[in-house]
Amino acid sequence: MGVRFGILGAGRIGLVHARAISSVAGADLVAVAEPFEEAARAVQAQFGCDIRTIDEIAASDDIDAVVICTPTDTHADLIEQFARARKAVFCEKPVDLSLARVKACLKVVAEEEAVLMVGFQRRFDPDFMALKAVIDDGRIGNVEMVTLTSRDPGAPPAEYIKRSGGIFRDMTIHDFDVARWLLGEEVETVQAAASVLTDPEIAKLGDYDSVNVILTTASGRQCTITNTRRATYGYDQRIEVHGSKGSVAAENHREANIQVANGQGYTRPPLLNFFMQRYATAYANEIAAFVAAVAEGAETATTGQDGLMALALAEAALKSVQEARAVKLSEILA
Amino acid sequence: MGVRFGILGAGRIGLVHARAISSVAGADLVAVAEPFEEAARAVQAQFGCDIRTIDEIAASDDIDAVVICTPTDTHADLIEQFARARKAVFCEKPVDLSLARVKACLKVVAEEEAVLMVGFQRRFDPDFMALKAVIDDGRIGNVEMVTLTSRDPGAPPAEYIKRSGGIFRDMTIHDFDVARWLLGEEVETVQAAASVLTDPEIAKLGDYDSVNVILTTASGRQCTITNTRRATYGYDQRIEVHGSKGSVAAENHREANIQVANGQGYTRPPLLNFFMQRYATAYANEIAAFVAAVAEGAETATTGQDGLMALALAEAALKSVQEARAVKLSEILA
Amino acid sequence: MGVRFGILGAGRIGLVHARAISSVAGADLVAVAEPFEEAARAVQAQFGCDIRTIDEIAASDDIDAVVICTPTDTHADLIEQFARARKAVFCEKPVDLSLARVKACLKVVAEEEAVLMVGFQRRFDPDFMALKAVIDDGRIGNVEMVTLTSRDPGAPPAEYIKRSGGIFRDMTIHDFDVARWLLGEEVETVQAAASVLTDPEIAKLGDYDSVNVILTTASGRQCTITNTRRATYGYDQRIEVHGSKGSVAAENHREANIQVANGQGYTRPPLLNFFMQRYATAYANEIAAFVAAVAEGAETATTGQDGLMALALAEAALKSVQEARAVKLSEILA
Amino acid sequence: MGVRFGILGAGRIGLVHARAISSVAGADLVAVAEPFEEAARAVQAQFGCDIRTIDEIAASDDIDAVVICTPTDTHADLIEQFARARKAVFCEKPVDLSLARVKACLKVVAEEEAVLMVGFQRRFDPDFMALKAVIDDGRIGNVEMVTLTSRDPGAPPAEYIKRSGGIFRDMTIHDFDVARWLLGEEVETVQAAASVLTDPEIAKLGDYDSVNVILTTASGRQCTITNTRRATYGYDQRIEVHGSKGSVAAENHREANIQVANGQGYTRPPLLNFFMQRYATAYANEIAAFVAAVAEGAETATTGQDGLMALALAEAALKSVQEARAVKLSEILA
Repeated sequence: MGVRFGILGAGRIGLVHARAISSVAGADLVAVAEPFEEAARAVQAQFGCDIRTIDEIAASDDIDAVVICTPTDTHADLIEQFARARKAVFCEKPVDLSLARVKACLKVVAEEEAVLMVGFQRRFDPDFMALKAVIDDGRIGNVEMVTLTSRDPGAPPAEYIKRSGGIFRDMTIHDFDVARWLLGEEVETVQAAASVLTDPEIAKLGDYDSVNVILTTASGRQCTITNTRRATYGYDQRIEVHGSKGSVAAENHREANIQVANGQGYTRPPLLNFFMQRYATAYANEIAAFVAAVAEGAETATTGQDGLMALALAEAALKSVQEARAVKLSEILA
Repeated sequence: MGVRFGILGAGRIGLVHARAISSVAGADLVAVAEPFEEAARAVQAQFGCDIRTIDEIAASDDIDAVVICTPTDTHADLIEQFARARKAVFCEKPVDLSLARVKACLKVVAEEEAVLMVGFQRRFDPDFMALKAVIDDGRIGNVEMVTLTSRDPGAPPAEYIKRSGGIFRDMTIHDFDVARWLLGEEVETVQAAASVLTDPEIAKLGDYDSVNVILTTASGRQCTITNTRRATYGYDQRIEVHGSKGSVAAENHREANIQVANGQGYTRPPLLNFFMQRYATAYANEIAAFVAAVAEGAETATTGQDGLMALALAEAALKSVQEARAVKLSEILA
Repeated sequence: MGVRFGILGAGRIGLVHARAISSVAGADLVAVAEPFEEAARAVQAQFGCDIRTIDEIAASDDIDAVVICTPTDTHADLIEQFARARKAVFCEKPVDLSLARVKACLKVVAEEEAVLMVGFQRRFDPDFMALKAVIDDGRIGNVEMVTLTSRDPGAPPAEYIKRSGGIFRDMTIHDFDVARWLLGEEVETVQAAASVLTDPEIAKLGDYDSVNVILTTASGRQCTITNTRRATYGYDQRIEVHGSKGSVAAENHREANIQVANGQGYTRPPLLNFFMQRYATAYANEIAAFVAAVAEGAETATTGQDGLMALALAEAALKSVQEARAVKLSEILA
Repeated sequence: MGVRFGILGAGRIGLVHARAISSVAGADLVAVAEPFEEAARAVQAQFGCDIRTIDEIAASDDIDAVVICTPTDTHADLIEQFARARKAVFCEKPVDLSLARVKACLKVVAEEEAVLMVGFQRRFDPDFMALKAVIDDGRIGNVEMVTLTSRDPGAPPAEYIKRSGGIFRDMTIHDFDVARWLLGEEVETVQAAASVLTDPEIAKLGDYDSVNVILTTASGRQCTITNTRRATYGYDQRIEVHGSKGSVAAENHREANIQVANGQGYTRPPLLNFFMQRYATAYANEIAAFVAAVAEGAETATTGQDGLMALALAEAALKSVQEARAVKLSEILA
């Protein structure tokens, strides 16, 4: 029999995961918990699952694992509740916006010996996996420089930005995780620059919309991250890794694989505009990996520690901007 | 309530369509007919449908439409049987390898006023649809020249080739359909060349593995088709349309969207190797289009007449090779 | 001491060759012959050479070789005159528009044991040379299919078309030569289609603007050629060669190697628009190859026979269109 | 009459400039000064110019301008000498490795009201000029982020590195100049990271081989520069500029414009490997621009001040690495 799931939260990302669970062999969606009755009923109708409260799911004998898709400020509490309830837990990033709270939460997870996977879906993108395989096969030799370009099509609403923890914790955090995944050793130093270039409202909220970060490891490997909140040509997601024997790069995804030529030149369509469309396969792969880990009792591909480290890098970047200096990650983790 | 389906034949392509029906809103898979019991049971298990005989499906009140995925030599008979049984029919290409038999079959379909869609899935590929939309939007002006490149990764087994009707009827037929779709007017003249270059066994079977075709319409529009049975780099599927105001091209799909650079150069992965993977979305879109046409009582996107015309072009091409001359389509259709 | 040159004709292409001679080590431009005094003086001023008549150049002791850049209908007579004058001869294609006249001229060249190179500059294009080297290195195995795409940015003036011998002799002739160069064996059969799609005036002149050709060799290798007189996006010059072990393709040259991304997509500039700009390096390489052949007494890379064969293919293509059948090259050469 | 030139130094880059002067309309190469007699005679033979000493050139009435291609440590003295001799001066970068010495030299130039152009040839590369034109035309809106990727095929010899002033002054200096050119406002803050990853010998010389830099302007525009001394795939030179309305990127130049496909994938050749080949046109354009400025009495496209600012950015980058903090350019220029 497969892994039996409860989903907490039936918003946009909850639906993505519900669909993933339904289509993965060896997984069953048993129940959803969602305060908005209409949303809950929609999930019930589409996937044929029960509607239960969070506490009912925690107490359910017929549920092995949960996917936490509730608002960020509930994540840490829910992880602890379900770790104690002996359910395997998949939680959307971040565990919490406070590093101290994350540490406390992971302590509970460790004490309970619970399974916790934190959602960093990019690691499960087929192109990025192929890029990682090239590195792991030794085809580019030793990794020396990683270049990550991530640009959103547009900034989120002010309400979202207010509660986001800022661009480093909300957007760059994905790049921090990818950087750790690809660099092959932990980051030692963080240097960052940050500006507001697209919308002065973002400055009023105390946030930035345009940032660059340099990460350096103990052996001198470096990673640069470029983020902006506005790219008119779509959702720009590129990785380039330079090594001692060569380089490997993953390219963007376009709306269609065509090009039109005329007197103005050769034009290919813009990029896919929406992260859920761009990473649709990654989200499905991610849940499949969680299901496989739970079924086999194996370690999850991304862990609570990964969530902690990405958040620590975000804090280091923010501190680097604020203090105009290189910040050691050890200062943050101490 | 949705369109209720029976599937005839649970082979490779039958499974593709079963999956498509299951995932399309407004369609239900009610029953499968398949002589190999194991295969039938597998479909039942995966999709929760009944197992019935072909005649039972024809007589079923709870079935509105069938998808014919049986061997080619049964297509025409089944189309007639189900047209008479007042079911909407989706049939994999070709209707038959004999033009006379196709004509007779379509006569029955016409008399019964039955719905018949012949499967030319390329018209439903997202890239090719985007290319067609560029043409329809007038962005390249009048279509003048169409260039179709279709290369298989490798030849099918001798057993398959023997019953295939030859490369023009088996492989080029898809390009003939695409050519008609894109040229915007009917073909008048066919010129073709054919060789055996990859495997002398193919010559022994009386077939070819390498062909080029020029199609010309009454107004002088031209289309070239290049086919080979062996491309070491994968399944090569390209379209280029040249018009009075510009050109539009659809490019190939690779195994991954990455590239590796080293002293030997910049290398991107080979193409997707398997037609079902390359056209996975096209197959799903095709069934969705059939469901929509049946539900709305609208004309299907590809018709029995499309199947007839593509076959006629195949016959004209073969005659052109055999007689070393340009062949008028009217000679074939007369 | 180097090879001492006379140039016959100081038009557009004459200037290209004058510049090439001036910049090639081992070559000196001694004299120009040109009826328009102003043009002659311009060459004299720019390159510091004499102005002489054609007959004076033929009689000059200080001239080893000539480059014939005069109108087509003078080529054969001049080749014969200079072959008899014991000068090495480089002649722009074609030798003549009449196959019989070409044969007679080559007979004189053979009798005089004269050096004759006919200008097919594409063989000297660096990209096409790199493509040829890939084939010669065995990297794509046996050549099976050659695909040549040649599109002009716009049709030449009516006056030019009238005296051009038609699109096959004027434009496709370059592709015929490239086809022979790449196929690795002589063409046996020619099939062609031709239309007027861009301008009805071209039909009034008895010519075509849009043609497709299929060439087949004795062993079954095939080549397709696509020509149009109008490509809105520039001068389109592509080669693709498909072999038993892989394929090799040469791509177009753009005005600049940049791309602009915005909401409409990713746009690269149009192609170089002018053949002299596109083939600037090829023209220089071609003269350098002629200089080297003359200096070393070696065979020229392209010969009178190459000029003859390309013209014969053009005649075969025209006959194929006129008689709606496959034409054997042996019919033309007989 | 044209601008009459003397060249100081007949090494590799001296020859490049000699060739450029010879081929630019309106420029004449009158004399060369070069201590190695053989090298001097070679220039004389190839370009038909005199051999003179540096002091003779400074005193020559028939010379209007000089190109300084001597070792770096002579640049500032020679600039001063020729500024006082009322010659227009083109000097290869850098003016000097010491910012104080540069300032003193530029003071002399200013006092003498001399024409001084410092060689930053990248501004004259056709692709980069096309990229700049896209920005200047407003097609990408306001510049927000500039991304410069510069990777050398291999590190220079230890002897060269010793006298180079380090990677920031020797290699990144070109990127600093391009950054200033494209950002459209002066840099305010510099953050840099530097490692030795390719060869421990470089560390022994006190230098780095792998650096990343973030530049920030007063309004918050940012530029990242990535440099490494070793790229196995050739000389990697890319620019990307992200703006409020779109992006523009300039791509690399390959050895040939072809691609080979086989079971391993699609491979294009490596990049041009040598900076003189990559920037051949840029070097010619650069001298043409200098000739035009001298002839018209106009300001040169790159000035002594440009040389000073690029060097200041190099010093700021080095200080940022050494002090692990963001360095204000004003600290350096004060």
